[in-house]
Amino acid sequence: MEAKLADLKNRLQEIYDLTAAAGLLYWDQSTYMPRGGAPARARQLAALERLTHEKFTDPALGRLLDDLRPHEESLPYEHDDAALIRVTRRHYERETRVPVEFAARMSSHAAESYHAWTEARPANDFKRVQPYLEKTLDLSRELAEFFPDKDHLADPLIAYSDYGMQAETVRAIFADLRERLVPLVQAISAQPPADDSCLRKTYPEDRQLAFGLEVIKRFGYDFERGRQDKTHHPFAIKFSIGDVRITTRVKEDFLGEALFSTMHESGHAMYEQGLAPGYEGTLLARGTSSGVHESQSRLWENLVGRSRGFWEFFYPQLQMVFPDQLKDVSLDTFYRAINKVERSLIRTDADEVTYNLHVMLRFDFELAMLEGRLAIADLPEAWHERFKADFGITAPDDRDGVLQDVHWFSGRIGGVFQGYTLGNILSAQFYEAALAAQPSIPDEIRRGEFGTLHGWLKEAIYQHGRKFTAAELTERVTGGPLSVEPYIRYLKTKYGELYDLSGAEA
Amino acid sequence: MEAKLADLKNRLQEIYDLTAAAGLLYWDQSTYMPRGGAPARARQLAALERLTHEKFTDPALGRLLDDLRPHEESLPYEHDDAALIRVTRRHYERETRVPVEFAARMSSHAAESYHAWTEARPANDFKRVQPYLEKTLDLSRELAEFFPDKDHLADPLIAYSDYGMQAETVRAIFADLRERLVPLVQAISAQPPADDSCLRKTYPEDRQLAFGLEVIKRFGYDFERGRQDKTHHPFAIKFSIGDVRITTRVKEDFLGEALFSTMHESGHAMYEQGLAPGYEGTLLARGTSSGVHESQSRLWENLVGRSRGFWEFFYPQLQMVFPDQLKDVSLDTFYRAINKVERSLIRTDADEVTYNLHVMLRFDFELAMLEGRLAIADLPEAWHERFKADFGITAPDDRDGVLQDVHWFSGRIGGVFQGYTLGNILSAQFYEAALAAQPSIPDEIRRGEFGTLHGWLKEAIYQHGRKFTAAELTERVTGGPLSVEPYIRYLKTKYGELYDLSGAEA
Repeated sequence: MEAKLADLKNRLQEIYDLTAAAGLLYWDQSTYMPRGGAPARARQLAALERLTHEKFTDPALGRLLDDLRPHEESLPYEHDDAALIRVTRRHYERETRVPVEFAARMSSHAAESYHAWTEARPANDFKRVQPYLEKTLDLSRELAEFFPDKDHLADPLIAYSDYGMQAETVRAIFADLRERLVPLVQAISAQPPADDSCLRKTYPEDRQLAFGLEVIKRFGYDFERGRQDKTHHPFAIKFSIGDVRITTRVKEDFLGEALFSTMHESGHAMYEQGLAPGYEGTLLARGTSSGVHESQSRLWENLVGRSRGFWEFFYPQLQMVFPDQLKDVSLDTFYRAINKVERSLIRTDADEVTYNLHVMLRFDFELAMLEGRLAIADLPEAWHERFKADFGITAPDDRDGVLQDVHWFSGRIGGVFQGYTLGNILSAQFYEAALAAQPSIPDEIRRGEFGTLHGWLKEAIYQHGRKFTAAELTERVTGGPLSVEPYIRYLKTKYGELYDLSGAEA
Repeated sequence: MEAKLADLKNRLQEIYDLTAAAGLLYWDQSTYMPRGGAPARARQLAALERLTHEKFTDPALGRLLDDLRPHEESLPYEHDDAALIRVTRRHYERETRVPVEFAARMSSHAAESYHAWTEARPANDFKRVQPYLEKTLDLSRELAEFFPDKDHLADPLIAYSDYGMQAETVRAIFADLRERLVPLVQAISAQPPADDSCLRKTYPEDRQLAFGLEVIKRFGYDFERGRQDKTHHPFAIKFSIGDVRITTRVKEDFLGEALFSTMHESGHAMYEQGLAPGYEGTLLARGTSSGVHESQSRLWENLVGRSRGFWEFFYPQLQMVFPDQLKDVSLDTFYRAINKVERSLIRTDADEVTYNLHVMLRFDFELAMLEGRLAIADLPEAWHERFKADFGITAPDDRDGVLQDVHWFSGRIGGVFQGYTLGNILSAQFYEAALAAQPSIPDEIRRGEFGTLHGWLKEAIYQHGRKFTAAELTERVTGGPLSVEPYIRYLKTKYGELYDLSGAEA
């Protein structure tokens, strides 16, 4: 049994290392690669993807997992070996359901579709991508059909990133959240908007970057095991537990960009840096779901990084870094600026109150498309209508409407958006649990100290990787299932201090 | 036959792409990787190496090459397909001679030995690495023994980087060169040394880098297909013909470091950028030998970059970039400074006249060790003796003696140094051919124009990749075999203007 377990770990380690190599190719493509490297880079990534898929679907791996079942069953559920075998089997079963030929077809279509989108969006030309999107929808349905046990076509697609969640569950959670959010948004929108002009001066790039790095160093992001580089669309990426990098982008005319993106990505990265070292080289060495991952980025970005206590410590320092821009701006004004709520067109620029409405629109549309209730041809119009209904504003074109997000144009339709809102919900639920366990956290934050919070998160969440599903982890950490209550409480408390929310009580 | 050729190309492309992926891992390790990434990086590189070796020694590839022999024989020697099959067979035969198990053992010993060296050199502790080096010598001999047809144990080792060269040939060339060089070095050393204090002021890094980039842009290094980053030990590396990068290092207290390293690496890189695009993805897409590669880096660094004509154009610009440091320094003084000849301890810092004496020492010692005439235990002492005899000076310790170069400590003993001097020799021989074909080149250089020279090199050398061996290429380009005459002529002409060489006529 020892030998078989060692065999399993060796196989997984090779896959892990090849996946990390592909990750580095992607990181380089997004940061430093010269334009001329693009054609070969696509080939190199495809070659690695082919190899890892081959190795992951090797029938010998399936036999090994069968042989290891008695060992797994002899161990407690929480034993690392049991978790390793269980999680590997789950992945093996998923990977082997999808024929190689189909996966290759889908991935090559995604590349073509993405390329078309990069041309269609600036040209505001939905027609250009419509046929690609129609094929993506067909392929997404086909992909879902490879999985027999499902209540909804979206279920297996959701399971790719949020294992354990179903379309119906998410739909119910989102309906609940939506009912409480809409009155909040309406109450806030009826009041004069916050003035964020203090963020929209000229902020030299180097000082923005240096300040952001100083902040996340204090958070506990380990620069011996990571670094930050510039890119177009910020992301965090792990090559090993000893090398988890983040990327950011800087706008010299908007202070709110790089700083919060850096905090956000550091949250993702600290999760991966905090994995149990013994999980290295296995499938356990990764955040457990897209929702839980996003909860960690949002926790550091919003619950910590946009809190008043945080800025009581950091604002005087920021004023020293940017004296010309901020010396006459009060902490109150700055705090209101970074928490400005505004109904706006672009998801990625949205504040924490309205953000989830963007996500729900997309999630609902995914279900509607998969169910055949919404044709691709009707998508742009449906987008504008729903947007008008939810936000009271209309995008002037499709560029800032249905064409704004890359997700549907570079992968599949179904299961690609829910994690963002699940993450927002969980961020508040986990943070409430942290504060209950460690009531000193807010005071420490006011002193620029984050060790207790970081330590608690590492202990409660980070170290476990994929050992527990998102639902199991939520239960362990908070004592109950996912709930929107903490999130609503958080928003009402915070924004109740900034706005008059008396009309928002449902 | 078409299908078999396509099969061959597909196999080679996968190997090429995986090799490029490993290249990127190495590049990252040498430029941006945080310290914590090291253990996993070693594993990732080993995984890719294992895979490419597996694919390269696949017996199916051997059968394919057999099947393609009639096709190859039906084509002219110079036909691209014939070259592709010929060169692939040469590599296949070499790769399959060495058992996988042995290659893995050698590579893992190299990693351990390298690690020991990184500790031994700063501690000046040869004893620490002696057992590693003894094992390296044993393994190097074992490696050579896998190849049956050889006149000298060093021959197959030399063939790894300088295919077609033999120990005896190199020995004869070096003896010839040495005989002419020693009087030159002696004559120069008897005169007062040049004053290079103008290079040893404070030169801010950013301006050094910007100036170097401006120079190589004019050379014709294509930044759409490359970039420069900082590292400890500069190198050039290709991920595809569309992505050939260089690295450099900067010393703020010595202007001679980054600038000439940048020119040097750009020479390597322009060779790879200039390969025939149709060779992409095959074994033909690479410089043909270490000697020819070095000839291209040296040509741009020394024959162009340290020439008077070059600086007639660039020196006024350099003075504008560094006015405080250079406004009172004449072109003559600067030109003498960058061409200072000095008997010094470190190969990589040596000038173009004494450099080859460093290489010959190492080459001779490689042969002596392989032949069993020189024991590892006696190496430090032998080094100091020979150094005293050749240079008239003695290193104060082994750190700047036998421990200075990484080569023997990170790979093998045999065949790892000759390329540097073969490159110096060929750089002058190729440059003479270029000037004969395009007499306008020197005037163009004086105007900061390099198009004719770059175009000629691309046409005569770069585009051919590995289609021709170094010897074939030399014959085609210069009309004769490798010869030291042009190199000696070049040195005598150039240094005859800077020093009195009347006593050096042999």
